[in-house]
Amino acid sequence: MTDALTIAIDAMSGDEGPGVVVEGAEMSRVRHPEAKFVFVGDQSRIEPLLAAHTDLQSVSQVEHAPNIVAMDEKPARALKNRRGTSMWESINCVREGRAQAIVSAGNTGALMAMARYQLKTIPGVDRPAIAGIWPTIRGESIVLDVGANVGSTDRQLVTFAIMGEACARFLFGLERPSVGLLNIGIEDLKGTENVKGAAQTLVEADLPIRFHGFVEGNDIGAGTVDVVVTDGFTGNVALKTAEGTARQISHYLESAIRRSFLARIGYLLAHGAFRTLRSKMDPRHMNGGVFLGLNELVIKSHGGTDALGFASALDVAIDMATAKLPRKIEEDIRHIYGDDISVIDEIANGSNGQEKEAAVS
Amino acid sequence: MTDALTIAIDAMSGDEGPGVVVEGAEMSRVRHPEAKFVFVGDQSRIEPLLAAHTDLQSVSQVEHAPNIVAMDEKPARALKNRRGTSMWESINCVREGRAQAIVSAGNTGALMAMARYQLKTIPGVDRPAIAGIWPTIRGESIVLDVGANVGSTDRQLVTFAIMGEACARFLFGLERPSVGLLNIGIEDLKGTENVKGAAQTLVEADLPIRFHGFVEGNDIGAGTVDVVVTDGFTGNVALKTAEGTARQISHYLESAIRRSFLARIGYLLAHGAFRTLRSKMDPRHMNGGVFLGLNELVIKSHGGTDALGFASALDVAIDMATAKLPRKIEEDIRHIYGDDISVIDEIANGSNGQEKEAAVS
Repeated sequence: MTDALTIAIDAMSGDEGPGVVVEGAEMSRVRHPEAKFVFVGDQSRIEPLLAAHTDLQSVSQVEHAPNIVAMDEKPARALKNRRGTSMWESINCVREGRAQAIVSAGNTGALMAMARYQLKTIPGVDRPAIAGIWPTIRGESIVLDVGANVGSTDRQLVTFAIMGEACARFLFGLERPSVGLLNIGIEDLKGTENVKGAAQTLVEADLPIRFHGFVEGNDIGAGTVDVVVTDGFTGNVALKTAEGTARQISHYLESAIRRSFLARIGYLLAHGAFRTLRSKMDPRHMNGGVFLGLNELVIKSHGGTDALGFASALDVAIDMATAKLPRKIEEDIRHIYGDDISVIDEIANGSNGQEKEAAVS
Repeated sequence: MTDALTIAIDAMSGDEGPGVVVEGAEMSRVRHPEAKFVFVGDQSRIEPLLAAHTDLQSVSQVEHAPNIVAMDEKPARALKNRRGTSMWESINCVREGRAQAIVSAGNTGALMAMARYQLKTIPGVDRPAIAGIWPTIRGESIVLDVGANVGSTDRQLVTFAIMGEACARFLFGLERPSVGLLNIGIEDLKGTENVKGAAQTLVEADLPIRFHGFVEGNDIGAGTVDVVVTDGFTGNVALKTAEGTARQISHYLESAIRRSFLARIGYLLAHGAFRTLRSKMDPRHMNGGVFLGLNELVIKSHGGTDALGFASALDVAIDMATAKLPRKIEEDIRHIYGDDISVIDEIANGSNGQEKEAAVS
């Protein structure tokens, strides 16, 4: 039995607008005949695009939302002007149960602020995290948090480990994904107090998690573990440093090739190989950051994505919604923390006001 | 007038031993006829190597130190067993004024612990930092701290900015190097309290520093600024993530080339280009991490370096010693903090015991 699934789509999001979004949905529909879509945005722009894809049209609805959140809009401002934006209204579809996940290629900060505001965190989770899907030598790994927070307590890092592990189980189909804590050395005595505290809990608390121990920056690309846990500051710097290094090497490669005639001939012959390489280094393959820790599923697609990238974000949303990921995380958290959850919720509620400030600033 | 300069060399350090060290010194001697060397280590192994290079021998002394600090030795243990090690005795040469800088390819943690113990920090500096020389699209940048500390206050970050700026001035010959603070966004409101506090001081305190503002992870490889300031945890993760990404791309490139016959032919033709690329990605070009904030100069060469890499670390040591970098940093710190220095020294002395624990654990 496959339940019908509906994905809400922020159709006005991303640099390329609804054309790319509709093309992406068409690609994803072919792979997921069980899925339905709600396109939220400017009806007059979406409907003509859907009319060109009758199969997609037959499993889709359009919900009119005339306003757009700008890519550079401050989260606080976006939250203030939320009514009638495609972002807010598409999240609302999920809140009201008319969809099981929402995908947006829009402004990350605004999306997180609006999603927290409408969907709230899972009981026991005081901070949501953004999980990135990182290509590695061995395949793919989940890295979290890549930028929802600026600092994390040891308890938050443990929660990230629980959420990331659940995510890897369903996204990669692994029974027991391995989890590592990002640190500046693999010896027990190194690292910040928060990292050491989180490691101690993961070792001692007898959690149903295959904890590998500490990993270092170079272990991410090597694929040493399936899930890399870190605070949002370090994770974001690591992600952008890796992107920068890939761009730097592309630059070196191009200028090395331009330098001689033989190199250019060689490049032409090896063209297929370079295309493979470029595709491996393509940020679209990291498309689909998942917001973990909210009561419903929110998937962030890269702002500059094309239809292929948007389709891959939709695929992630459909897989995660089929697995009912937020409910699994809720069960895991309850199983691990038990009655202790109320304490966390107090902290979460007590600091929600403050955190909202941080998230939307 | 060029003063005679003496560089103390931990001759037993590094994976390859004194052979590589002596070869490296010979290369550096040719470029720096004003330099003299003190080789510290096992006399019976160093002297025969020097005998093969009579020009080098004529500007060198050998100081016998029979013991070696192992690469995997814990800093606390190394410090306990310091007497008679080539590392300790070579630092001692600098402490006693018989050399103006010391270069070692040994155990980083042990080197930092021994150097702090013998040389102490510059007045006003409570934490030394390790400055890495990072290849960028535009040339080279200084990144600090890349691993001496696990966390940094805003005041420490400001001190890193002052020290990194002085380092870039003399190492790259720049009159006004630009300085950026590593953050997860370039907007003023993002980041940790420490990073925001450091930015505020760098903007408001009217320091003689060309402060660019915040930079992100991808700006490091792009060479957006000459000096990137960050705490030791983030800097170390960024450095190792960049190394891991470079290794990952090499791996993709190799497997892409192996995949087809044409690609292999192309690779052979473009061989020179690939050699250039590999040399750009070679960690030896990042050789020569500088310990900043100590009263004397300590240069760390990569443990797995060859003679070329060791020579480049010696060149850095000679340039920095000629510029009298620690004295310049001392002047800069005094100029900026003035009488306020005593407060910092109190903090530094008060927490020295604790910090030593951290550094040597």
